[in-house]
Amino acid sequence: MKNPTVWTLARRTQRMNPSVLREILKVTERPNVISFAGGLPSPSTFPVDAFAKACAEVLQTEGTGALQYAASEGYGLLREWVAAHLPWDVKPEQVLITTGSQQGLDLVAKVLIDEGSKVLVESPSYLGALQAFSAMEPALTEVAGDDEGVDPAALEAVADTARFLYVLPNFQNPTGRTMSDTRRDEVVDVARRTGLPLVEDNPYGELWFDKTPPLPLAARYPEGTIYLGSFSKVLAPGLRLGYLVAPPEVMPKLLQAKQASDLHTPSFNQRMVAKVLGSGFLPEHTNAIRDLYRRQHDAMQAALTASMKGTGLTWNRPQGGMFIWARLPAPLDAMQLLPLAVERGVAFVPGEAFFAGPTDKQALRLSFVTASVEQIALGTTILAEVIKEALAHARQREALESNEVLQT
Amino acid sequence: MKNPTVWTLARRTQRMNPSVLREILKVTERPNVISFAGGLPSPSTFPVDAFAKACAEVLQTEGTGALQYAASEGYGLLREWVAAHLPWDVKPEQVLITTGSQQGLDLVAKVLIDEGSKVLVESPSYLGALQAFSAMEPALTEVAGDDEGVDPAALEAVADTARFLYVLPNFQNPTGRTMSDTRRDEVVDVARRTGLPLVEDNPYGELWFDKTPPLPLAARYPEGTIYLGSFSKVLAPGLRLGYLVAPPEVMPKLLQAKQASDLHTPSFNQRMVAKVLGSGFLPEHTNAIRDLYRRQHDAMQAALTASMKGTGLTWNRPQGGMFIWARLPAPLDAMQLLPLAVERGVAFVPGEAFFAGPTDKQALRLSFVTASVEQIALGTTILAEVIKEALAHARQREALESNEVLQT
Repeated sequence: MKNPTVWTLARRTQRMNPSVLREILKVTERPNVISFAGGLPSPSTFPVDAFAKACAEVLQTEGTGALQYAASEGYGLLREWVAAHLPWDVKPEQVLITTGSQQGLDLVAKVLIDEGSKVLVESPSYLGALQAFSAMEPALTEVAGDDEGVDPAALEAVADTARFLYVLPNFQNPTGRTMSDTRRDEVVDVARRTGLPLVEDNPYGELWFDKTPPLPLAARYPEGTIYLGSFSKVLAPGLRLGYLVAPPEVMPKLLQAKQASDLHTPSFNQRMVAKVLGSGFLPEHTNAIRDLYRRQHDAMQAALTASMKGTGLTWNRPQGGMFIWARLPAPLDAMQLLPLAVERGVAFVPGEAFFAGPTDKQALRLSFVTASVEQIALGTTILAEVIKEALAHARQREALESNEVLQT
Repeated sequence: MKNPTVWTLARRTQRMNPSVLREILKVTERPNVISFAGGLPSPSTFPVDAFAKACAEVLQTEGTGALQYAASEGYGLLREWVAAHLPWDVKPEQVLITTGSQQGLDLVAKVLIDEGSKVLVESPSYLGALQAFSAMEPALTEVAGDDEGVDPAALEAVADTARFLYVLPNFQNPTGRTMSDTRRDEVVDVARRTGLPLVEDNPYGELWFDKTPPLPLAARYPEGTIYLGSFSKVLAPGLRLGYLVAPPEVMPKLLQAKQASDLHTPSFNQRMVAKVLGSGFLPEHTNAIRDLYRRQHDAMQAALTASMKGTGLTWNRPQGGMFIWARLPAPLDAMQLLPLAVERGVAFVPGEAFFAGPTDKQALRLSFVTASVEQIALGTTILAEVIKEALAHARQREALESNEVLQT
């Protein structure tokens, strides 16, 4: 007989941990909490009427196709739409529809990662990608960067034998930074020379404020890049619709991994979105989202400038997306600050959740898309007060400690 | 510089192969092919009107919830419905909503299988489960059985150190067999004594013809069983909605694996189905499906009896579900027979696809749910002719060969 518990868990489960982010999001669901935490698109942008119309049409005219089992590759019209709307030469056969782009990360992990495989990630990087990759037990290696993105020299130093570099070039989660055009060329040059594959994640690319971001890495290095895209930020995340574009060489295995994962992405959702896209609805809708997020971003920049004087908080100015990356003054710790902020009704995400290596405990991520302009102003003011109080406490404690040192 | 291809695939991809079944299904999509191949529910059972009504209501009254990111566990009302409708004491907290029950298999594999782990499966077993498990590189071990299910003595002989037994007790795919009540007790007894966890898959349980199947294994051994269920067969597969019920001990890791796999199952689909279920629509609808499938099953039994005389084909009589399991006379080979049958306009699935160990090349799976009663009669007649011709050819070849033997 075995031990009292019959369950033996796979070794990989040791790498699975409750998502700090999800635990925080639960807190922010309390009413009256102003959330700068979640990466939740503003619900005001959800095209409810367009969906209602598309649902009715799909069920009426193609109900059987929408409700039956379907091909693992995805719905033909949707694959064609994706191929036609990407800014490089993509054939529909290279497009695999995924159940959100999170699934794209899971498939990439299954197909490219063995236990101990070296996988390169930005420092910091998207938490969901770190989780998806970790399940296949890689050795994650961080690549340093600056405001323009991954540092080419740092990349070259670790590229050898790496299975791939995971990179989010546009309005990155969590930093909001965008890889410059020159930097993209440099990174691709390193990748080509060292035979390094790239996994490019682009959920936020359409959410630019003033100008479109530079061409994707996949457009510069198509044979060596798997590209992940999503409809979550321009239509709605609750439909769980994403896609990946892969070179012919890796597509068959990605497809087989997809079959084994969930057979196919819901056909109903694929057809409904294909219907909405086919109506030519998207360009204007995306413009409206851009306008909204630009206004909210500007409001947060203004509010930070106005309220953070004297706190020592520093922050960046992204050119699109959903996030501002900020840094608390020493000796403050973002994870320790969070419960104090939540108690006063404001939430954010401590930056340390996003590091595969040594963490930056002073960093924090501020989302400007979920809260309204009024909430942004109020929340920022509260956050400034919380920081000032925490600083005062820290100084008091330091004074006490140095007193104690003097007394002993 | 690496070799000309930049991609290094994970070792597990060697275990991923194009699904024979999916390749066959592609053939059966040709018009005029009568398909006994697919496990496709009859589209006539899809409740299009109920879905249309639910879609409109969900978008109108809870559009934000349906379209926003949501909890990985699943939608509360749907989890409550599942817990309340299972025939043993299940709490909603034990229910995890999955993107089809195929995803349940993927999550189980991720959480319970290490490379080389012993995993027990029926002989034969569901192909999609073999694929999902194989991705985590187990040592699959078949357990022999008979018409009543897994053989308890055979199970006991291999139970030690196995991570789990995967078992599909009701109207199994591919054999259609149902585990008897006594056999369930015996299997649970072996599992308890040897500390063997069970993974019980029940996609077809509601599709009984004359009487409900015996209580699930999970009801008899809840602390040692992960139970998988699905809405694909009673509502529609194109929504990709399934669930798993797990003991509190393994639920946290299953949930974390779910987060990393696709964040959550589409909230829109969950709310739409919760709405349909809440309307009390299901019992009558399921009765209608049962009536239809019983009629189609009876039609296939009658057609087989009428047309297969003299062919030597044998087959079983399931008490529900979607499949009849048949066996060709020696020396015929189902995989070799398939192209001949497809050429004449009839498709089936060769049994060999379903074995993790040595295959039965004479076996084949006949689905009675996709074709109409008229197509069933016609298809069976054609299949009988194809078998007779193949037998005649085989005898001719044998005669020729024995002649050649005589001549040399």
